[in-house]
Amino acid sequence: MDMDWLSRSLERVRERRPLVHNITNFVVMNTTANALLALGASPIMAHSPEEVEELVASADAVVVNIGTLDHLFTYSMIKAVAKARELGKPVVLDPVGAGATTLRTRVATYILSLGGVSTVRGNFGEISALSGELGKTRGVDTAVYDESVAREMVKSVAKKYSTVAAVTGSVDYVSNGERVYAIKPGAPSTEELVQRVIRRVTGLGCIVTALIGAYLAVEDPLKATIAGIVTFKVAAEEAVKEAPYPGSFHVKLYDWLYRLSGDTLSKLAEGRIIEA
Amino acid sequence: MDMDWLSRSLERVRERRPLVHNITNFVVMNTTANALLALGASPIMAHSPEEVEELVASADAVVVNIGTLDHLFTYSMIKAVAKARELGKPVVLDPVGAGATTLRTRVATYILSLGGVSTVRGNFGEISALSGELGKTRGVDTAVYDESVAREMVKSVAKKYSTVAAVTGSVDYVSNGERVYAIKPGAPSTEELVQRVIRRVTGLGCIVTALIGAYLAVEDPLKATIAGIVTFKVAAEEAVKEAPYPGSFHVKLYDWLYRLSGDTLSKLAEGRIIEA
Amino acid sequence: MDMDWLSRSLERVRERRPLVHNITNFVVMNTTANALLALGASPIMAHSPEEVEELVASADAVVVNIGTLDHLFTYSMIKAVAKARELGKPVVLDPVGAGATTLRTRVATYILSLGGVSTVRGNFGEISALSGELGKTRGVDTAVYDESVAREMVKSVAKKYSTVAAVTGSVDYVSNGERVYAIKPGAPSTEELVQRVIRRVTGLGCIVTALIGAYLAVEDPLKATIAGIVTFKVAAEEAVKEAPYPGSFHVKLYDWLYRLSGDTLSKLAEGRIIEA
Repeated sequence: MDMDWLSRSLERVRERRPLVHNITNFVVMNTTANALLALGASPIMAHSPEEVEELVASADAVVVNIGTLDHLFTYSMIKAVAKARELGKPVVLDPVGAGATTLRTRVATYILSLGGVSTVRGNFGEISALSGELGKTRGVDTAVYDESVAREMVKSVAKKYSTVAAVTGSVDYVSNGERVYAIKPGAPSTEELVQRVIRRVTGLGCIVTALIGAYLAVEDPLKATIAGIVTFKVAAEEAVKEAPYPGSFHVKLYDWLYRLSGDTLSKLAEGRIIEA
Repeated sequence: MDMDWLSRSLERVRERRPLVHNITNFVVMNTTANALLALGASPIMAHSPEEVEELVASADAVVVNIGTLDHLFTYSMIKAVAKARELGKPVVLDPVGAGATTLRTRVATYILSLGGVSTVRGNFGEISALSGELGKTRGVDTAVYDESVAREMVKSVAKKYSTVAAVTGSVDYVSNGERVYAIKPGAPSTEELVQRVIRRVTGLGCIVTALIGAYLAVEDPLKATIAGIVTFKVAAEEAVKEAPYPGSFHVKLYDWLYRLSGDTLSKLAEGRIIEA
Repeated sequence: MDMDWLSRSLERVRERRPLVHNITNFVVMNTTANALLALGASPIMAHSPEEVEELVASADAVVVNIGTLDHLFTYSMIKAVAKARELGKPVVLDPVGAGATTLRTRVATYILSLGGVSTVRGNFGEISALSGELGKTRGVDTAVYDESVAREMVKSVAKKYSTVAAVTGSVDYVSNGERVYAIKPGAPSTEELVQRVIRRVTGLGCIVTALIGAYLAVEDPLKATIAGIVTFKVAAEEAVKEAPYPGSFHVKLYDWLYRLSGDTLSKLAEGRIIEA
């Protein structure tokens, strides 16, 4: 894949400052708002059923994240996705904890069935739960990653729900139901650090989803999903080289989402996005 | 303006550790609690309708922030402001997103109309929405700043609601309905960094509002509002000199709210608060 | 006390990565999730009445924290504690703000009366409120610490509710109703820094409670409570030596929860846990 589009996508986010409406969980509201701002987008965090439709109408993209779900948030998410579909606004769904509880699997599946989701991104256990083929996740981040299963899963989930599906991990898989792309990790020594540290900070998957939301405002869903994942990956690699411990790494991650230029991003992503 | 009062105000906050009751949005609860603690105040974050009146009664000041609004929070905010008015406790209102949705403009206006608000602080778009004269904000932070309009707006909003009104930006404007004060930025090279970075971190306006809350416990509304704004400004300038990227800057901001002495604050504010 | 058990407890947390289900307040959801991950546990933050029982059933320990209480959270907490009791899962309760409002004292007392709480940890004012012997707390962190009263209080609260009770402060007291242990601070120069900085960061008491939750999955309640407190204490001491200001200290605290080995922990705790 030629990487110039990636550089241009990041620059477009920074020029247009897309308004990204987030209905997200309490744990990461601050985290994902800061990640979107650091990247260059303009987040708004709002969940009241009284205002979600109005916000969807003025937003450039919508992020729906089902962590810390309750009945009020569920209702607002459904309203927002239905409105986004009606208006043709892109939506990214993060099915946090799907597979961990019946409620979450059901809500994630229902939101996908509404038909307005451009991208669904989760970890291995969450996308497994949506594919209906694999067992129960334990917690929100504990299923064991199997790459060949991930490859098949993203394709089948993408097909099933007419969306782009992504599983993130050391190697990430993204599919639009026809093609599957793998995004490879960086240098082994850096990757070892990244894998050690990112499992010790909360909300990083949610950040990836939010970044995809920003790119959805300026790219088609397949490219936006790849761009969001690769931007996170490269920023995390730069951050961990400066700070190999979770607290400091987390701070440097925002620094690097801000510092990354389009050119640096596309250069560091070179050769790492391959059809799988 | 002689700056000794500013030094004394900060020292008074640190001696008295005023109890500041915050009914605020989910995105910044952690952020503003940490800013208040770093400054030297004692925050309590609570929104249940069952306990807000009791907390207002024991608080020295109340912060009401309408970001991530829902019906429960709206009800609690109204109860809290009515109780504060009854007991003569100072209240600062942050009309986050006023102008961005009908709900928020309506709730902010209604809270102001209750008559117990000592200060209302917002960005240009939010105070525009309350003045009823200017158009719709897009998102929570995107209206273009016009200084001469800001100057007139704070005066008219302050008069209309018998309160102190403030618009924050590179130059901040504060009015009690009669006089208008402008707070000028620091050295141009520092200010350029500040403006570049603060737009990339969430909740900084909410921090300014919370700091005003702390000062309201020890000063009259006009001085408390100026003190809160100037304290943030000076701390942000020191922080950005140490850390010009959003993640690291955010961390250093708390450090500097803690490290700033009364004397340093008044020295760095010297000549920057002028009648406009 | 021989300290080898402490080293083994920390290693066991890291090997087993216990699933810790948190029903906690909005201010610290991000904070305590990050602290649990940094330590090596696997947190899940969830409060919907529709899923709490299912999560308790798959969790290794449950953390219940009553800060930012409302009717929905109260209902979920009661359901969770009742379910945990039925299934024999350990529960730690943080009675944030007990004594500060009638609602909080009542909810904390009611949860304790359900009989499923393994440990209750609070500051001096909160545990006072539960002991029913002392006056009203002002705010969430402002009662004056009296060591000999703390010593008696933990014993009587532990007896009254058949639980382990802990008051944290410069010297911490822990009791199972029969014995009382005191945990002593580190070197005076470090302790002076720690006491100055920790009062200026929000959620640190909530972190101690969450860490106790992680240890409850691998130890009996008395040892788990001591381990959680001592782990926080030692990590805070290392962090403050690197960063004596609140923002930077907060970041380094996560780094040290991650960096602390079992051996270092037991070595630094040597001679500091004494029967009192």
